[in-house]
Amino acid sequence: MTVANEFELTGANRIGRHESRAGGHSFTSQNPRTGQPGAVPFAEATPAEAAAAAALAGETFRQWRSTSQPEARARFLRSAATRLRDWRDRIVAIADDETGLGAARLNGELDRTCVQLESFADLLDEGSYVDAIISVADPQARPVARPDVRRMLVPIGPVAVFTPSNFPLAFGVAGGDTASALAAGCPVIVKGHPAHGGTSEACARAIEAAAAETSMPAGVLSLLQARSVETAQALVAAPELEAVAFTGSETAGRAIHDLAAARRRPIPVYAEMGSVNPVFIGSGALAARAAEIAEGLAGSITTGTGQFCTKPGLVFVPDDDAGRAFERDLADRVAARPVGVMLYAGLHTTLAERVDRTMKLPGVERLTPRTLDDGSGPGFARPGVVVATDAATFLATPALSEEHFGPVSIVVRCPTGEMVDLASRLHGNLTATIHAESSEHAWAAALADAVVEHVGRVVWNGYPTGVAVTWGMCHGGPYPASTAPAHTSVGVTAIRRFLRPVAFQNTPDNLLPEALRDVNPLGIQRLVEGVWTREPVRR
Amino acid sequence: MTVANEFELTGANRIGRHESRAGGHSFTSQNPRTGQPGAVPFAEATPAEAAAAAALAGETFRQWRSTSQPEARARFLRSAATRLRDWRDRIVAIADDETGLGAARLNGELDRTCVQLESFADLLDEGSYVDAIISVADPQARPVARPDVRRMLVPIGPVAVFTPSNFPLAFGVAGGDTASALAAGCPVIVKGHPAHGGTSEACARAIEAAAAETSMPAGVLSLLQARSVETAQALVAAPELEAVAFTGSETAGRAIHDLAAARRRPIPVYAEMGSVNPVFIGSGALAARAAEIAEGLAGSITTGTGQFCTKPGLVFVPDDDAGRAFERDLADRVAARPVGVMLYAGLHTTLAERVDRTMKLPGVERLTPRTLDDGSGPGFARPGVVVATDAATFLATPALSEEHFGPVSIVVRCPTGEMVDLASRLHGNLTATIHAESSEHAWAAALADAVVEHVGRVVWNGYPTGVAVTWGMCHGGPYPASTAPAHTSVGVTAIRRFLRPVAFQNTPDNLLPEALRDVNPLGIQRLVEGVWTREPVRR
Repeated sequence: MTVANEFELTGANRIGRHESRAGGHSFTSQNPRTGQPGAVPFAEATPAEAAAAAALAGETFRQWRSTSQPEARARFLRSAATRLRDWRDRIVAIADDETGLGAARLNGELDRTCVQLESFADLLDEGSYVDAIISVADPQARPVARPDVRRMLVPIGPVAVFTPSNFPLAFGVAGGDTASALAAGCPVIVKGHPAHGGTSEACARAIEAAAAETSMPAGVLSLLQARSVETAQALVAAPELEAVAFTGSETAGRAIHDLAAARRRPIPVYAEMGSVNPVFIGSGALAARAAEIAEGLAGSITTGTGQFCTKPGLVFVPDDDAGRAFERDLADRVAARPVGVMLYAGLHTTLAERVDRTMKLPGVERLTPRTLDDGSGPGFARPGVVVATDAATFLATPALSEEHFGPVSIVVRCPTGEMVDLASRLHGNLTATIHAESSEHAWAAALADAVVEHVGRVVWNGYPTGVAVTWGMCHGGPYPASTAPAHTSVGVTAIRRFLRPVAFQNTPDNLLPEALRDVNPLGIQRLVEGVWTREPVRR
Repeated sequence: MTVANEFELTGANRIGRHESRAGGHSFTSQNPRTGQPGAVPFAEATPAEAAAAAALAGETFRQWRSTSQPEARARFLRSAATRLRDWRDRIVAIADDETGLGAARLNGELDRTCVQLESFADLLDEGSYVDAIISVADPQARPVARPDVRRMLVPIGPVAVFTPSNFPLAFGVAGGDTASALAAGCPVIVKGHPAHGGTSEACARAIEAAAAETSMPAGVLSLLQARSVETAQALVAAPELEAVAFTGSETAGRAIHDLAAARRRPIPVYAEMGSVNPVFIGSGALAARAAEIAEGLAGSITTGTGQFCTKPGLVFVPDDDAGRAFERDLADRVAARPVGVMLYAGLHTTLAERVDRTMKLPGVERLTPRTLDDGSGPGFARPGVVVATDAATFLATPALSEEHFGPVSIVVRCPTGEMVDLASRLHGNLTATIHAESSEHAWAAALADAVVEHVGRVVWNGYPTGVAVTWGMCHGGPYPASTAPAHTSVGVTAIRRFLRPVAFQNTPDNLLPEALRDVNPLGIQRLVEGVWTREPVRR
């Protein structure tokens, strides 16, 4: 099948490779720098289109599950990465118009998106991700004879992906959730974020082209362009669905979690939501490298206009002169950074309200100057904001533990000896960061032990933004960081969200899936009789 | 610390090793063979006692998490197995009085319970269960430099376990859910099934003794004896809780799932619930070994008075003369088996009502004689029941797809060519069983491909009851078989329900958990730079 080398945005929903415009409404994106609407109207998907996309995914799964091989899916994912790179300039231009994130960031994000797709292809080639565990029959076993039991992971079924506004590529239509679900062998229906409909369509077209090139069924991906809650609800309610992946706000993630839990047949929701990402700075670290930390932190707070789920939102500094000097330096560096724009009008308004409310709290002091806070700047511009408070106020004021999504951070002045206790009271977070020198490792170890209970990742002497795409990454954590703390949405183990185990008992070897056959035709790592091996099974 | 070599049942709740009787109510178990109440009154746990047990588990976790080593937990689990064996005769006698399951079955179940505890100890000794994945730093990586990221699984936190009536030992207080949670390093609060309070207390005392012998904190296990819904609700609502494991009915499991999902901070519920466990019999299998299959199936339907979640409740037989002869033979063999007793009065009543309702359905024919169906037999006696229907009636009658918990099975007469389609329409099940000869492998393979989408285990030429305790077992499946199809409650991977990943980024080697350190001091299997190895990390 031939596919177009280029594409023009149509604004249609895409059900498989079919353009769909069943409803009478449309919406446009807005340029965050100017506030002006984009040129392409996107057809608002109806609940019936959501149901149709789910039905197609169900049919596709039934067929794909039986026929698709890991190596074919690996080719598909690599082809998608190639297509994204081929279309790089178009995609970055569309995304920049819709998000204001800038070409440098978006080029990097496109690279990251491709690396993610290729990482899952590598995982499929390696093959051991099916987690094969083999126990051969033992007629002599006590208390009873043991049958031959072989277990592996199989795809769970159709997956809905809800994409966020802040990573239009890496967490977008071709992002990590889609990549890991497709790698698992699960068809995907994406509900794209309405702030960047063109970016969503471009990425969907890239995956479509890759699917056609590698002979995947058309129904492996559908894209719904929708602002309406009803369409999202219809998607989550679709009977064919087996799991939902979501990245975004706690409010929206919780609503989807609750809907899925209330289905006649509940399904898992892997929602990655809010996080305040506490940073703890030791006195030794401050003595050794205060300026370096202030510079790194200022970048982590303001890069991407602070619109990262891993933005450091709470910074615990020693309650002494060195701490005061550090917080002033940090605020100055944040204030000196260029003013960025928020991704869309709603975020801009919400952040302004949230900052206003926080500034009115007793015991909170603003360290950065007031500029643009009346919202009168061009587009959705927001400057960086640093405020400070003391540990007692922080503990007594729950609003200070809430996420300020944007370039805002709260410094908490706290004796280092009290930081361990404070750390043990935190809510769930994606990350916690510790800055400590060797001389203060006893303190830092106690702190790390306290925070590990509440986070998915502990960062040492670094900054939580910039989640590395490595096999061992964990991007998740206890609620409200996510609704599924046993899972991650970044790193190759993200595939496990979309797999489930099946055991085969006393199955004739020729009827077993290849991964479980005696000779180990895939040459994968398996746990045989409690021993990890790539050797054939001898029985 | 010295512990008693013997024990006397006290009837108290056990919060840690403290006896607790805060409420004014008590209940007794009943002997299912006579209907007579037992001698020991069990103190009904109050909601406040549930909250106190959870609070103790929370405190214990905070301490235990940091200090407990896998090898210490392995000693603890093995000590519990030893104690159960030491107390075998007492425990079996208590359990037999409370359940009527008989000494042979209960001795086997005690052995199985010990093997489960020891399997998890073996898993801890092997050590690789922490799923260590290591990516070393790469300053040259593109699009951005890569930090050192190392990820492993850590215990999730306090776990509530709700035990069922039908496996008083293997799924009881010292059963697989408790064993896997303790192995993970999670304190456990058990809400014991009220039908066998004495068995629950005996098992709790065995674990307490083992904990004392191996210097585990007292709060690693608490036992609540309760019939009241309010106490169960208070336990699920406790803020310290991080997960719930449940085995029992779909109604109760779903209620707990819904409660946990509605918490301010939702937590996962691993509920293993109902299943009808379809069996498909091919014409070739019938020609080759009809009598053998009928005998095996009759045993699988009636053993333990059919009170297994894996009891074969639906048997699809060829719609021809051979099938008719088989169903008559099956019914005769079931009818010839000794009448067993149900575990408690409620099950006895529910099954009688369910069988009455099923018998009144149009198109359903009873193959076994009517005996004892008026409930006038001694104790809670129930004979085996086999009924038959045709495929069209089965498809048109949803009640025939519901579980009949007890020695009841429904034969569905169906052309073998239609069985694949029927299989693809089934609800979620723990198991599906296929009887097929080599000559009919094409048909059997298509059937297996259809059922695998709906089950946790496929059994070939065997019977689904008697879930083998092997490393590769999967006991779970799509809803309503379980609320968490990505997990199993039997087999060593059951531990994964109680673990979650944490990544450590750029952490000094001496501050890393042992499992992640460069030299690999535990000698475990790790995934380093995408390669499985036990070698040290070189950087």
